Amino acid sequence: MANVGIHLVVDAWEAPAELLNDANRIREALIEAICAGEATLIDLCVHQFSPHGVTATATLAESHIAIHTWPEHGYFAADFFFCGQGKPARAMEVLQTALGAKQVTATEIQRGFPQSADPRTRRSEAVFQGVA
Amino acid sequence: MANVGIHLVVDAWEAPAELLNDANRIREALIEAICAGEATLIDLCVHQFSPHGVTATATLAESHIAIHTWPEHGYFAADFFFCGQGKPARAMEVLQTALGAKQVTATEIQRGFPQSADPRTRRSEAVFQGVA
Repeated sequence: MANVGIHLVVDAWEAPAELLNDANRIREALIEAICAGEATLIDLCVHQFSPHGVTATATLAESHIAIHTWPEHGYFAADFFFCGQGKPARAMEVLQTALGAKQVTATEIQRGFPQSADPRTRRSEAVFQGVA
Repeated sequence: MANVGIHLVVDAWEAPAELLNDANRIREALIEAICAGEATLIDLCVHQFSPHGVTATATLAESHIAIHTWPEHGYFAADFFFCGQGKPARAMEVLQTALGAKQVTATEIQRGFPQSADPRTRRSEAVFQGVA
């Protein structure tokens, strides 16, 4: 397996509804999380739903962070996909703390593809076969 | 478990490098995928890296789609997080076809939280206990 990055899939609950419905607070929390995760922000979209709920996507040089909140359930879903040298677990901790979630589950997924499928590897094999 | 949505985690490879490095084609493919998935686009960010690679995030009324490409490996990672009535599997198929990936793995994750943690449920229990 050729790993390109780590993806933390996070579900968090028992968070105050007023924080989960505060688009400005979520924007600030995302920027804090991106800084803490040592990532580089390319673009940030924060959208307030009516009557409640906020969704936000941060496009990063390292990949992305996304968050979707359900204030009426005290719940939010977040994703931290980082390639390179960033610290997704640190970003997750900062977001969880900023939004006051008492409960959280995080699943780490290694993103990537079979090493044997890499065209650069296959090209090397072809060259080697040619030489042999 | 209270499910709020379905998240398809997709890794795809054996795709042509020229497609994976074409930001305009990826923008078009995402819009096609969003339409096929019967989702509503709020915001779309498409970013071209140098010397190669494209990253894009689509903020949806239903949650989000994200894609990150590694043309040099013929690989892309994509996420389709849909709450509500959308069709994430159909969106995935359209994106995979548009970008010419011959191989794909997709993992479906049910996003949500324990039913017992829902504050609306807990409030009902509290009322019931008060009555009892």
